[in-house]
Amino acid sequence: MPGHRLARIPRPVSNPSQLPVRSTSSGIEIDVVYGPASHGELGEPGEYPFTRGPYPTMYRGRPWTMRQYAGFGNARETNQRFKALLEAGQTGLSVAFDLPTQMGLDSDAALAAGEVGKVGVAIDGLSDMRVLLDGLPLADVTTSMTINATAPVLLLLYQLVAEEQGTPPERIRGTVQNDILKEYIARGTYIYPPAVSMRLVTDLFAYCSRELPNWNTISISGYHIREAGSTAAQEIAFTLANGIAYVEAAIEAGMDVNRFGPRLSFFWNSHNHLFEEVAKFRAARRLWATIMKERFGATESVARRMRFHTQTAGSTLTAQQPENNIVRTTVQAVAATLGGTQSLHTNAFDEALGLPTEHSATIALRTQQILGAESGICDTVDPLAGSYYVESLTDALEVAASRLIRETDRLGGAVAAIEQGFPQAEIEEAAYRASLRIEAGDDIVVGVNRYVADEDAGVEPLTVDPVIEQAQRERLAAFRARRDQRSTDRALGRLKEVAGVRANLMYPMKEALLAGATLGEVSNALRRGFGVHRPG
Amino acid sequence: MPGHRLARIPRPVSNPSQLPVRSTSSGIEIDVVYGPASHGELGEPGEYPFTRGPYPTMYRGRPWTMRQYAGFGNARETNQRFKALLEAGQTGLSVAFDLPTQMGLDSDAALAAGEVGKVGVAIDGLSDMRVLLDGLPLADVTTSMTINATAPVLLLLYQLVAEEQGTPPERIRGTVQNDILKEYIARGTYIYPPAVSMRLVTDLFAYCSRELPNWNTISISGYHIREAGSTAAQEIAFTLANGIAYVEAAIEAGMDVNRFGPRLSFFWNSHNHLFEEVAKFRAARRLWATIMKERFGATESVARRMRFHTQTAGSTLTAQQPENNIVRTTVQAVAATLGGTQSLHTNAFDEALGLPTEHSATIALRTQQILGAESGICDTVDPLAGSYYVESLTDALEVAASRLIRETDRLGGAVAAIEQGFPQAEIEEAAYRASLRIEAGDDIVVGVNRYVADEDAGVEPLTVDPVIEQAQRERLAAFRARRDQRSTDRALGRLKEVAGVRANLMYPMKEALLAGATLGEVSNALRRGFGVHRPG
Repeated sequence: MPGHRLARIPRPVSNPSQLPVRSTSSGIEIDVVYGPASHGELGEPGEYPFTRGPYPTMYRGRPWTMRQYAGFGNARETNQRFKALLEAGQTGLSVAFDLPTQMGLDSDAALAAGEVGKVGVAIDGLSDMRVLLDGLPLADVTTSMTINATAPVLLLLYQLVAEEQGTPPERIRGTVQNDILKEYIARGTYIYPPAVSMRLVTDLFAYCSRELPNWNTISISGYHIREAGSTAAQEIAFTLANGIAYVEAAIEAGMDVNRFGPRLSFFWNSHNHLFEEVAKFRAARRLWATIMKERFGATESVARRMRFHTQTAGSTLTAQQPENNIVRTTVQAVAATLGGTQSLHTNAFDEALGLPTEHSATIALRTQQILGAESGICDTVDPLAGSYYVESLTDALEVAASRLIRETDRLGGAVAAIEQGFPQAEIEEAAYRASLRIEAGDDIVVGVNRYVADEDAGVEPLTVDPVIEQAQRERLAAFRARRDQRSTDRALGRLKEVAGVRANLMYPMKEALLAGATLGEVSNALRRGFGVHRPG
Repeated sequence: MPGHRLARIPRPVSNPSQLPVRSTSSGIEIDVVYGPASHGELGEPGEYPFTRGPYPTMYRGRPWTMRQYAGFGNARETNQRFKALLEAGQTGLSVAFDLPTQMGLDSDAALAAGEVGKVGVAIDGLSDMRVLLDGLPLADVTTSMTINATAPVLLLLYQLVAEEQGTPPERIRGTVQNDILKEYIARGTYIYPPAVSMRLVTDLFAYCSRELPNWNTISISGYHIREAGSTAAQEIAFTLANGIAYVEAAIEAGMDVNRFGPRLSFFWNSHNHLFEEVAKFRAARRLWATIMKERFGATESVARRMRFHTQTAGSTLTAQQPENNIVRTTVQAVAATLGGTQSLHTNAFDEALGLPTEHSATIALRTQQILGAESGICDTVDPLAGSYYVESLTDALEVAASRLIRETDRLGGAVAAIEQGFPQAEIEEAAYRASLRIEAGDDIVVGVNRYVADEDAGVEPLTVDPVIEQAQRERLAAFRARRDQRSTDRALGRLKEVAGVRANLMYPMKEALLAGATLGEVSNALRRGFGVHRPG
């Protein structure tokens, strides 16, 4: 049939030894057929080493939390999107902040220009947080905030507004990302030098253990490590290595591992390879439980158990033929739920093109609802347990990740390894190798290096109105004009002083925010208090 | 938060004994947790009882055939859609015929009015088939034809045109559905009484075993049984019971089970419940292998091995929020490929609204390509083997289906059971119970009885131009005008005579088609030869 690009249909190969080798992202060679074999310890669900999940009944007892990350423009718009998502049946909130908020810059800072409200909501201070949370049922939902360098500021603003609304501290539930180490490895939104950052992290741990007992103090994140191009094994290893560093810092600050351990949470990527991903979640749980027990002597079961949020892999989405992304996201969501995630964000299909529209955001949520209600995935705990293949992959990933953690230990732990550029270089090499495979056509991306179509996307992503930035600056000026400038200055001065001594920074920070200090002013007080990090 | 329909977030239940019972479609109770247990025989892939698949290397050796069922309007349009699908990377063809063609009516028959080209392509005779297959690489692709009562006619037309194009009979590969028994149970496109229909089925078996050795002579179909509302266990049972009837008829007609057995193929539905579906495919393979070995004494491995096509479940698609169907179809396609299907049709997301457009048909094909190329599903054989849950479900489905097959046996086999209305009544009851569960909200259909949205679909399905019907009638008249009427009449007369005696009908039918007889004329000769079936 001349003129037709008909793929030649290969004859089946029936002799396994004639087949080319196939490997996972982590370089684990995949056998053609798996059969019964001994495998690592599973334990019962809800019991050490938690391979089968952190809870005894998992989704039979309660489905995962459907938590779509959202935020754009100003607090008012984001508040409305949250209400729409709750009405659409979402069960948890997740706030995206704009870059200036993440970097400790007020919306009127020179460096903030052009970035206000762009990739998330702009929050300058108490008044913005009041608008963001207006009318939301804070005693009943859990809220996740993707915020790191300025995590203490946003958590305190959240607590202050929740209390204003009548929610007592012990009912305030949620998570701040607060994982600064992966910012140096992969994401880049850090402000202070690593050592100082670690102090803020552990100050927040200590504060929550006293004041907000049901708040997850950190979400130790492999997500961005994977998005930067790591393998699944590297995602586990560098994330758990960062986790080890946080636990060490907290213990060094005098905290009890059985006390703060239960409030640690994790955040994973769910990538394309269905089985490697399921195995990754299982291996990560088992490995962390072992580390908490054997390295840190945690005796409480809840301090050994890993709970995590998952987001489907944004880096796998294509601008070409964007509806194909619904398929990818579905498969990745299947992997996350078969792996036993506690909460999930499914990406909208147009995210490779721009901000999700309400339509695409709804389809993304529906994806989770269909899995939860129609697919039978919630019917039993850890449904792939015992699968020869999945158990083999789980073991292999645990071995591969353990090896990288030992290397990190040899370099002096995560902080030292990051300063020497070790995880960064390993991830860069993996990303480079992956891109070579795609370039050579060894790895196929449908619509990109194969099954390419000429048709136009025809999809209109959302864009943020540039008028937002000016309006936000005016709101900020009005907020500053309303406060008692002398008490603001006094509180900021105290904060700067405390930065120079050994005391928990959360308390003076809260005073400053209550006195009307903005996020940028609080961050500047700390910058002056202990200097700013510039990467070598 | 008054005014917000915020679902109350339930506290997790951690005591398994407090949880409500949950069951599959087949009424199999699902445990909260599965652990190691003994289970049915798996065997090696490609070996008896084929639980793990019909081939030793499965998709590592060659991915499943991506075969999208297509056909609408006239032969020219459908030919163009086929070429587009092959260019888009589809690897097999699948022809949908309109109702008149399925019922043995020419396009100018009174009963055909308003139906020509509506649900598939209209084929009246040799000239239409020439246009349908024009320029297609028949020596290199396999072609499936969804045709039952008139399967002999369409197969012969296909062979005649393939030979005209220079493809020798032994290179002609594909499948006719040719499963008339399920038409009485579930689908309704039968013409003749059951006993006569069985003769046409076995005549086709015998003809192919002599003339078209690589053609699959039947596709024993559970698909429509499931679409009619059966459970997964009923789908297996009534389909295999029909298979048993075909094998018995062929043996009675003097054929060798080791000779025709390898050319039997099956056709399953892939429904919503991911794990019950995977288990269904595995249980069906094991059960069929046992039946062929133990009941029929098949000694050749290839005569015991079940190969099958799968289509995702059209009945699960919703007109509401149609893009949600991409999610459902993806999950169902995952089930089909984890179950080891040989070929797959994935439904287009707008099929609940009308005929798929080229855009929606492309997304459906891309769904398969993403699973094949990006998800890692092809990396190893039967990846769920050993899973405590999946092996338990596989065993339970085998037991449940065996029980129904024994009941069918007791009624005198499938033909007698159908005449007594047994499978019809069982399916009707299951369908009724399923609809009650949806009405009561015990089973959730996203967008229908939960997560309902007000927004309009905004999807424009394809409709067939009514002008097609008139044009097709004119083509038919021209075709009749061109033929030598005397030799057409002679050939049809011979066919009618053979219908009254014990001889293979395929040969006189082929002569009649070559002499320019139309599908309707051939069917009428047979109708006159042996009478027409009217359901009691």
